Amino acid sequence: MRFEENITLTHIDQGTPMGDLLRQFWLPALLSEELPENDGPPLRVTLLGEELVAFRDTDGKVGLLSAYCPHRRAELYLGRNEGSGLRCAYHGWKFDVRGQCVDIPTDACGPEVLKRMGTTAYETREHGGIVWAYMGPAQPPADVPELDFCRVAPEQRYVSKCLMKCNYLQALEGSIDYSHISFLHKDLEGGTGKADTFGLGEMIKYSEDDGRPTIFCDRVEHGLQIAARREAGADAYYWRIARWFMPVIVVVPTAPGNVCRANIFVPIDDENCWWYRIRWHAERALTEQEIEGYKHGAFDYAELVPGTYLPKGTRENDYLQDRAEQRTRSFTGIPSAQLQDLAIQESQGRIHDRSRERLVKTDLPIVQCRRSLLQAADELVKGNAPALASRPQAYRGRAYAITRPRNVELARIREELANE
Amino acid sequence: MRFEENITLTHIDQGTPMGDLLRQFWLPALLSEELPENDGPPLRVTLLGEELVAFRDTDGKVGLLSAYCPHRRAELYLGRNEGSGLRCAYHGWKFDVRGQCVDIPTDACGPEVLKRMGTTAYETREHGGIVWAYMGPAQPPADVPELDFCRVAPEQRYVSKCLMKCNYLQALEGSIDYSHISFLHKDLEGGTGKADTFGLGEMIKYSEDDGRPTIFCDRVEHGLQIAARREAGADAYYWRIARWFMPVIVVVPTAPGNVCRANIFVPIDDENCWWYRIRWHAERALTEQEIEGYKHGAFDYAELVPGTYLPKGTRENDYLQDRAEQRTRSFTGIPSAQLQDLAIQESQGRIHDRSRERLVKTDLPIVQCRRSLLQAADELVKGNAPALASRPQAYRGRAYAITRPRNVELARIREELANE
Amino acid sequence: MRFEENITLTHIDQGTPMGDLLRQFWLPALLSEELPENDGPPLRVTLLGEELVAFRDTDGKVGLLSAYCPHRRAELYLGRNEGSGLRCAYHGWKFDVRGQCVDIPTDACGPEVLKRMGTTAYETREHGGIVWAYMGPAQPPADVPELDFCRVAPEQRYVSKCLMKCNYLQALEGSIDYSHISFLHKDLEGGTGKADTFGLGEMIKYSEDDGRPTIFCDRVEHGLQIAARREAGADAYYWRIARWFMPVIVVVPTAPGNVCRANIFVPIDDENCWWYRIRWHAERALTEQEIEGYKHGAFDYAELVPGTYLPKGTRENDYLQDRAEQRTRSFTGIPSAQLQDLAIQESQGRIHDRSRERLVKTDLPIVQCRRSLLQAADELVKGNAPALASRPQAYRGRAYAITRPRNVELARIREELANE
Repeated sequence: MRFEENITLTHIDQGTPMGDLLRQFWLPALLSEELPENDGPPLRVTLLGEELVAFRDTDGKVGLLSAYCPHRRAELYLGRNEGSGLRCAYHGWKFDVRGQCVDIPTDACGPEVLKRMGTTAYETREHGGIVWAYMGPAQPPADVPELDFCRVAPEQRYVSKCLMKCNYLQALEGSIDYSHISFLHKDLEGGTGKADTFGLGEMIKYSEDDGRPTIFCDRVEHGLQIAARREAGADAYYWRIARWFMPVIVVVPTAPGNVCRANIFVPIDDENCWWYRIRWHAERALTEQEIEGYKHGAFDYAELVPGTYLPKGTRENDYLQDRAEQRTRSFTGIPSAQLQDLAIQESQGRIHDRSRERLVKTDLPIVQCRRSLLQAADELVKGNAPALASRPQAYRGRAYAITRPRNVELARIREELANE
Repeated sequence: MRFEENITLTHIDQGTPMGDLLRQFWLPALLSEELPENDGPPLRVTLLGEELVAFRDTDGKVGLLSAYCPHRRAELYLGRNEGSGLRCAYHGWKFDVRGQCVDIPTDACGPEVLKRMGTTAYETREHGGIVWAYMGPAQPPADVPELDFCRVAPEQRYVSKCLMKCNYLQALEGSIDYSHISFLHKDLEGGTGKADTFGLGEMIKYSEDDGRPTIFCDRVEHGLQIAARREAGADAYYWRIARWFMPVIVVVPTAPGNVCRANIFVPIDDENCWWYRIRWHAERALTEQEIEGYKHGAFDYAELVPGTYLPKGTRENDYLQDRAEQRTRSFTGIPSAQLQDLAIQESQGRIHDRSRERLVKTDLPIVQCRRSLLQAADELVKGNAPALASRPQAYRGRAYAITRPRNVELARIREELANE
Repeated sequence: MRFEENITLTHIDQGTPMGDLLRQFWLPALLSEELPENDGPPLRVTLLGEELVAFRDTDGKVGLLSAYCPHRRAELYLGRNEGSGLRCAYHGWKFDVRGQCVDIPTDACGPEVLKRMGTTAYETREHGGIVWAYMGPAQPPADVPELDFCRVAPEQRYVSKCLMKCNYLQALEGSIDYSHISFLHKDLEGGTGKADTFGLGEMIKYSEDDGRPTIFCDRVEHGLQIAARREAGADAYYWRIARWFMPVIVVVPTAPGNVCRANIFVPIDDENCWWYRIRWHAERALTEQEIEGYKHGAFDYAELVPGTYLPKGTRENDYLQDRAEQRTRSFTGIPSAQLQDLAIQESQGRIHDRSRERLVKTDLPIVQCRRSLLQAADELVKGNAPALASRPQAYRGRAYAITRPRNVELARIREELANE
């Protein structure tokens, strides 16, 4: 990859090709739980490099405004959330969720003056425990992506987020890379004899048995369909079939009947991103045991510093890596699969330099994903907005990990899953 | 305001228009109490972007030298303050308060060599509990400003300072902004029934009753006379009449007979300043209760981290903001008026971007102050030094908060106060 | 010194004149004790501005590779040190100490592909408790410098290192500056009556008696021979005769029969260096008392934060300076001679600005050292590599502090010492 292409892919400020492309889509801005009550404390939010303030108004609507009062640029964050608007602490100017200035108590202004004093506001929607924002220049698309986890009852879902101190793209790439699971997440004891609480038994077993998956990757309307095929005994294959939804959503394969998973990687700025870590079950409420695992850290869910969305493992504490454990029990000695991902992706540097890589066959989905993003960004520069942004129903669909006889082809498996 | 004008107003290094203007005036460099004893430990001081070292010599005179020994540029701060000079810890070179090199013990140097080895020194004077420095290129003006608080007995005065992590000008602007007190400092309980220890009862009452003051602003020899008029019942006006002394001193209105107040904002560098917070009484010693309030934090005085000049409230701890308190008792929930000022002014960013403001009528004093500074800087570039710098007596005079019948005009009130 | 010359002397990245000169020599990369066991945890190392990873393989050989896996640039530091190579934690690629890629388990690669996938590796040698690295472009010189401390039995030697937050050159300059010891390290009580555990009695006494040494400085094959002559009573001179070995090694004078000393200053990057602090005895094992002193801090050895190579004294804690102690017992009040050096050298700034110095006669060795480095760097630019780099035996020889009658000339003393 050329150095310039890497710059294009990773820089997300307003006016950059990728920044503008991302602004065509609804994106997670924060968790609904971060603004638990109407007229409660506002929140500082940085998104796509923009400093913002979020607040839930008297009617429960979430406002997402420029962080600074247009008058003298004091932070609205210090202000008062009251009476269907956020009031600046400096001179009492007040703004509603649409960014309109509704009161200038220091001066006797007419409505025309008030109109001129409005501030930048981004439209928001709440779905699936997430406050989505549209930061584009035009009208937002009709609706947010109809992701499966948004369409189940709240008790069937667990959503949290975790700070990653690196560019969003290398985090996303880890999530569509199906060869690394044979190594980064390898359990040296082979997972044998353990209770398979999280339905990952097959993944661990077959990934370890076969470290050289055959990778299939198809470009589809929503982005990519990715399939990794591994040997599963003499007669069968173990398939992991995932979906990348342009631009930053991945639905990760899980066995039928198990808890489903999705990851969303949202740029905070060029060097940091939020990792939204989503779990849901298509048919039933999540169990207490499952939720405890997500809350307090489990094999597949990285633990947070209580009261924050910061991971307990960081570069400063070597991601809790235990070198004795690494010799005997796990490939890395790092305590959860998510923290393993976070550690290795942050280790690539704040912005991974793709011009210095040496890719191999199994990196195919990564190559395809980059190509898709670059093409979409290029089309947007030419004036062609991505049609996908207005097709929320294209975001439906889960991802599967299944075992099938060797003679069943991928096309047939896809058909079978589509009909499920 | 144009972007370039904002750069001019806020950059204070040597050779910049505003840096050079500030260097025409005596400025507070440190508190006298920071160098409590002759031959005591020296002190690191950064002022107008210059790294300096201060020391009180054997005779009690305060030296203010370039931080680095001219020989091999070790910090003189580590050195020995002894025998009427500061001796470098590296090779024992010694400098007096005038910056003259008085000893090079490693070499047998004649007096001509010593002369060549001198270092930068700025002249200092002590008045009013403050060590003032003159950092200009020529001879310093005859005397430091004859501010009222410098001319009373020490027991009638309390002087301290507090670090602000922002440019000096936005701090100064907060101090001449008389509309914000109706909001930022509003007491939601109206101050009723409280003991008015600090003589602020009227300010709280009338500022809250009338949030739309009429502002008067006159350019005078010393800078600006600013008056804010509010309704005080049906027949009277409540007047706050303040003075801005060019370049960075504000005398704040207080009721006759009460403790007086002044603020001085001294640039450390472009992104930090010292806020000198001065209290004095024209006729009597300050009471123990008053002094305790200044020392340990009170309604109008921000508390410091013990043993430092750092505020307890910082951006990292949300300026001790209590959101429950904000709902019910004070407009911000931040515990003192000074910390409220500090919080809101730091929130404007390290250097407030004046090119993105939307000013209104009540911002008049801020506009006038900026204009005065830009004009004086421009005159200096043309070779016309500010006459005010050599007129210490122009800095006399206090500021009043008073109530008068509505038919008494500002001009008559000024006459009345001038004769007091 | 011109500003540009200072840039040349202090910048050490690949492709800079001084960076390229340093890369002609074997340099200390880490201590052997930092990699205590075969197949043990790898180590992050930054050297000459390059990010590296060090590991001791199954056979005990130390590898020093580029920090990042060439595949997707994950840090090899997180990886597994096993089976004669370091395996990346992301996809399991494995590299041996020569940087050759020996396994790509995700793909069925032939040997030609593996060959292309190799990574940067620097050759290493272990001598004298130090892992030496050659980071130059060509084949490394035959052998590492034959320094005396490398040629004694391990029990006769103590080697440690200490982080200095400044450029390597100002640290090195302090080590060849023989006038500063009369000041920076002065004991105000004259050292009288103390047990002379470290054989420094004469240095303290005569350095204090005579603060104006006569300095001699000769350019020799290995760099410089430096002699400082001080009065030692009416009839004798006290001589300190040191050696600077190009580029960054200093052997410091000690009295015959005493423990010997050397310092090596290795650039981490432009603004930080490692100070290797070496003690050895030519004839006997070090005593327990001596080793305790090095381990836990002594008059001449700065104490480290346990479990690290960071000094306990830092700029943030004023280098443990005790101002009362400074008034009465030591020139600086800083607790050890090494910490005094570290404090004063860090105080010159991250990169000391030599264009703003005013040098005197006693600074001669510093001037000569800079000139030698600049000339050698200039010759290398012209294509003439330093012959000294291939002459390991030129690094032999200790340094002496001795007293001789006044009529004995330096040349005769040198002869006498050469024959010892």
